[in-house]
Amino acid sequence: MAKSQLLLPSLVLLLFILISKTISQSIIQLSRDRDDVYCNSWRFSVETNDVGYWDYVPSGCVSYVQDYMTGDGYRSDSEVVASYALAFAKTVEIAGDGKDAWVFDVDETLLSNLPYYVLHGFGSEPFDELSFDKWVDLAEAPALQASLDLYKELKQLGFNVFMLTGRSEYQRNATGKNLLFAGYSDWERLILRESSDKGKPATLYKSQKRLELVNEGYRIHGNSGDQWSDLFGFAVSRRSFKLPNPMYYIP
Amino acid sequence: MAKSQLLLPSLVLLLFILISKTISQSIIQLSRDRDDVYCNSWRFSVETNDVGYWDYVPSGCVSYVQDYMTGDGYRSDSEVVASYALAFAKTVEIAGDGKDAWVFDVDETLLSNLPYYVLHGFGSEPFDELSFDKWVDLAEAPALQASLDLYKELKQLGFNVFMLTGRSEYQRNATGKNLLFAGYSDWERLILRESSDKGKPATLYKSQKRLELVNEGYRIHGNSGDQWSDLFGFAVSRRSFKLPNPMYYIP
Repeated sequence: MAKSQLLLPSLVLLLFILISKTISQSIIQLSRDRDDVYCNSWRFSVETNDVGYWDYVPSGCVSYVQDYMTGDGYRSDSEVVASYALAFAKTVEIAGDGKDAWVFDVDETLLSNLPYYVLHGFGSEPFDELSFDKWVDLAEAPALQASLDLYKELKQLGFNVFMLTGRSEYQRNATGKNLLFAGYSDWERLILRESSDKGKPATLYKSQKRLELVNEGYRIHGNSGDQWSDLFGFAVSRRSFKLPNPMYYIP
Repeated sequence: MAKSQLLLPSLVLLLFILISKTISQSIIQLSRDRDDVYCNSWRFSVETNDVGYWDYVPSGCVSYVQDYMTGDGYRSDSEVVASYALAFAKTVEIAGDGKDAWVFDVDETLLSNLPYYVLHGFGSEPFDELSFDKWVDLAEAPALQASLDLYKELKQLGFNVFMLTGRSEYQRNATGKNLLFAGYSDWERLILRESSDKGKPATLYKSQKRLELVNEGYRIHGNSGDQWSDLFGFAVSRRSFKLPNPMYYIP
């Protein structure tokens, strides 16, 4: 009897805790869901290039971007893009003359600067060239795993891989070292901005460099990049693969 | 005493029900979340044009697409795209010579065929021209609300609006009637496929029609469409606005 008399209030208390926890979780979830709906739409507009030029992640979406970048979303999106790139690559007939090419951007495409952006607000802070250059010099950015897997498959299929980056010539050593560190090897050429490319919009600079490849006789079948400025312009590849990047925009 | 003796087993039962419901909900949620992560990534690849040509919504993503199209996601994405289109439109200096133009696609841009697709599997079934033509003849497709709002604002700002659709000339009456029914009015021109356009890829057909406008002296500032084939090609607008559409792909 005494035991059941003690059990009763405990059970009532437990029920109360369980129900109030459920209710408060529901309220938090509801407000989170509403923010997420907007931030999801903001990301849609960013990734489809509807936003055009943008500076920072909206303040209301910073934790959304953090969750996306560090959770399943970013990894999964990158994997699915890579799977479509590979499916296309497998349909390409490799001529065997060494002219079948694939172009990769570097930052947020082959290499992930997530360890840097974790410490710099996931794109919510103004870009700080000084601290980013220091990070580049460390040459310790990990590979974007899906891109590394794709890269290896493309090499196996017989593609010649070109890396076309907005980084500058003075960063050649650090960039090459970092690419090796991350597991890349046997690329055909690493193309960086020369002094004559300084100040050019990325779309123009990258188009000109692709045109040089085309003029050398390369057939650019695929092009992978996290910015539309990696993919648009002239001398474009047969198929372009836009990787996700809700952290920053390069015109 | 007797009362509390009855209360005790009831409370234990209630607790048991509550806990087992929570657990089973968690398991369902977990598997749903996993599917959603993939389908979200599939939608990312579709909307960024990474997939290229695709026939149907993957069978594992049909209910995901249904939820997206009938829930907050589609409405919110359309609204955010429209907000960026309007923000850009407001930066355009209207010359007052009647040559400042905006081009809209019709299906899934100005008009929503969702009532049709609700009955036809949300893009999971092969396209059935016969039943779709019957639906077109009804001329009862509602407006995509965000596009209607944008349309009215653009008219206010002084843009001349062109509607450029993949529909054919024989559907001119039904299409015009439907646009009026949905709330659109005072468009400059409704452009449909003539017999000479039959069989042309949408990108070519729409580029040629835009080029005709450019040759008539129109300045195409903005272009809104749910397909990349509405936006790519030549004689492209200064800014393009890709609306969401995870139900079908038009090359």
